[in-house]
Amino acid sequence: MPSTTSTSGDRRRTASVPDLVEAATGGDLRAVGRLVSLVEDGASRPELEGRLREAMALLAPHGGRAHVVGLTGAPGVGKSTSTNALVGALRAQGHRVGVLAVDPSSPFSGGALLGDRIRMGDHATDAGVFIRSMASRGHLGGLSFSTPQAVRVLDAAGYDVVLVETVGVGQSEVEVAGLADTTVVLLAPGMGDGIQAAKAGILEVGDVYVVNKADRDGADRVRRDLRSMLNLADRPADAWRQPILPTVASTGQGVDAVVEQLLEHRAWLGRTGALERRRRRRARAEIEAVATTRLRRTWAGLTGAAELDGLADDVARGERDPYAAADALLAAT
Amino acid sequence: MPSTTSTSGDRRRTASVPDLVEAATGGDLRAVGRLVSLVEDGASRPELEGRLREAMALLAPHGGRAHVVGLTGAPGVGKSTSTNALVGALRAQGHRVGVLAVDPSSPFSGGALLGDRIRMGDHATDAGVFIRSMASRGHLGGLSFSTPQAVRVLDAAGYDVVLVETVGVGQSEVEVAGLADTTVVLLAPGMGDGIQAAKAGILEVGDVYVVNKADRDGADRVRRDLRSMLNLADRPADAWRQPILPTVASTGQGVDAVVEQLLEHRAWLGRTGALERRRRRRARAEIEAVATTRLRRTWAGLTGAAELDGLADDVARGERDPYAAADALLAAT
Repeated sequence: MPSTTSTSGDRRRTASVPDLVEAATGGDLRAVGRLVSLVEDGASRPELEGRLREAMALLAPHGGRAHVVGLTGAPGVGKSTSTNALVGALRAQGHRVGVLAVDPSSPFSGGALLGDRIRMGDHATDAGVFIRSMASRGHLGGLSFSTPQAVRVLDAAGYDVVLVETVGVGQSEVEVAGLADTTVVLLAPGMGDGIQAAKAGILEVGDVYVVNKADRDGADRVRRDLRSMLNLADRPADAWRQPILPTVASTGQGVDAVVEQLLEHRAWLGRTGALERRRRRRARAEIEAVATTRLRRTWAGLTGAAELDGLADDVARGERDPYAAADALLAAT
Repeated sequence: MPSTTSTSGDRRRTASVPDLVEAATGGDLRAVGRLVSLVEDGASRPELEGRLREAMALLAPHGGRAHVVGLTGAPGVGKSTSTNALVGALRAQGHRVGVLAVDPSSPFSGGALLGDRIRMGDHATDAGVFIRSMASRGHLGGLSFSTPQAVRVLDAAGYDVVLVETVGVGQSEVEVAGLADTTVVLLAPGMGDGIQAAKAGILEVGDVYVVNKADRDGADRVRRDLRSMLNLADRPADAWRQPILPTVASTGQGVDAVVEQLLEHRAWLGRTGALERRRRRRARAEIEAVATTRLRRTWAGLTGAAELDGLADDVARGERDPYAAADALLAAT
């Protein structure tokens, strides 16, 4: 458990990473927040890589317990409201919940504190809930680099469920599905392009479909259309049969049934070995994201490298060949 | 000097790199050809990198003596004919000449033997001339990776002048200027876009301008237009003043004057310290090209790497963090 001392260390910019990890894994919300900030800042500030690596190495043995749920949908389907309702239903069952709201179109990250406090709504004073908005635009590696690392922090900090909410635009819904155990796709009536989006890629990624705003005209139609499309998809007999659930997130109607299906899907994943496969696939993607981010940085740093002038002199004088010089350059950047 | 034994080793695919380098630096044309082939093949076959590195390391101390001349111009200005005429004029003065005809738009390289024999024309039986056509399209790093390494081979093999001929399209004329001590820009009358091309970038790269086909209508106009553009360019008082020379390459008319200006420019480079600066800049570009080619290959190899599955298992089980796994992956690829 975190001591008061380690918590008060929060204000020191130089708080040691082992102290932060110890506090975070003990349930200290501030330490969790600082580690998530380290992940976010690390995506754009190479000088933090040392601390970030240290944190990830110390967090690794603590992970693997959380149920990682991705939640995606087009703008306007009610993602924030649904997240809020899901958090409430999960808390009512005693689960600790971490939320990462990822906006792949925003360059702003980190200290969106006011926004996060408003988002937290009913949960602002609940120590069993952690909510953070993250941005990924303009960061090397984007969503695929920092989000899985933030998930690692919350997982290691003992959150039973980590909800990753992201707007379903372009590639991001596929990326969020790649890092989730269970992916929830949100739809709503009156959004003609919702089903078009579904046709395009959602059938690939959804484990649980939720038709929100189910009290509005057209909700049944959305469910029927979606069901017939899912039935058309060619799947093995023992595959998970994706449920399509109606909700009115603003009143909480139908939300318990969604939670039930999330937990049911998690159990199915464990039973069938699919969980292990998904997590291995996720680990592959994480390793590749870290490696390609490193290569991008190395590349970007080559031209301006201080070592290049001296190496060029050596090569121009015939004292070194370009390969040996490139080795030295790559080792230095 | 190369022994007959090492020359007959030419037919062994496994001829050792030190033997090849010794033979090439001793003036053995076949060994020179095999090293240039190694450079070309190495651009698309990573498994040759070991031999290529060994060759470059052994060649490095032998370099730096050749006068590297770039020759560029739009299609149709008479580049091959001009190269042929320049080779003849240089040979008449006793210089050994190596020619690399680089076609950045062609995916074919290496064994364009018939083409090279035709190109060699008058010089096919002259041991003081080496000519090779090189392609760069589709190779990692393209022109900037393999051409400077081929220049190194010819330089180390004792060619007094290495002529790099390339068609002036897009970026290639800037690249060829980057690797030359002296850049010749060829123009011809009746090619309206010649001067347009000049406006775009040629003023930056030419040290010697040649208006070929000077016996045709409009040649004087091309020279006058070019002279006024060069006079408009803002240059320091002690800068090299680029000559504009008329030639009829097909008859050899005016070619001796071009050779004279090439040698004059080379002397000016040495006198003013510009040679050293250009060669240092060239070395920088070479080192960067080797380093970025290595990074590109590493990047391309990441996803399919055999090590990735095992590393992903380790990460999924919490036995390794993604950074440590990325280190191992990058070290293995």
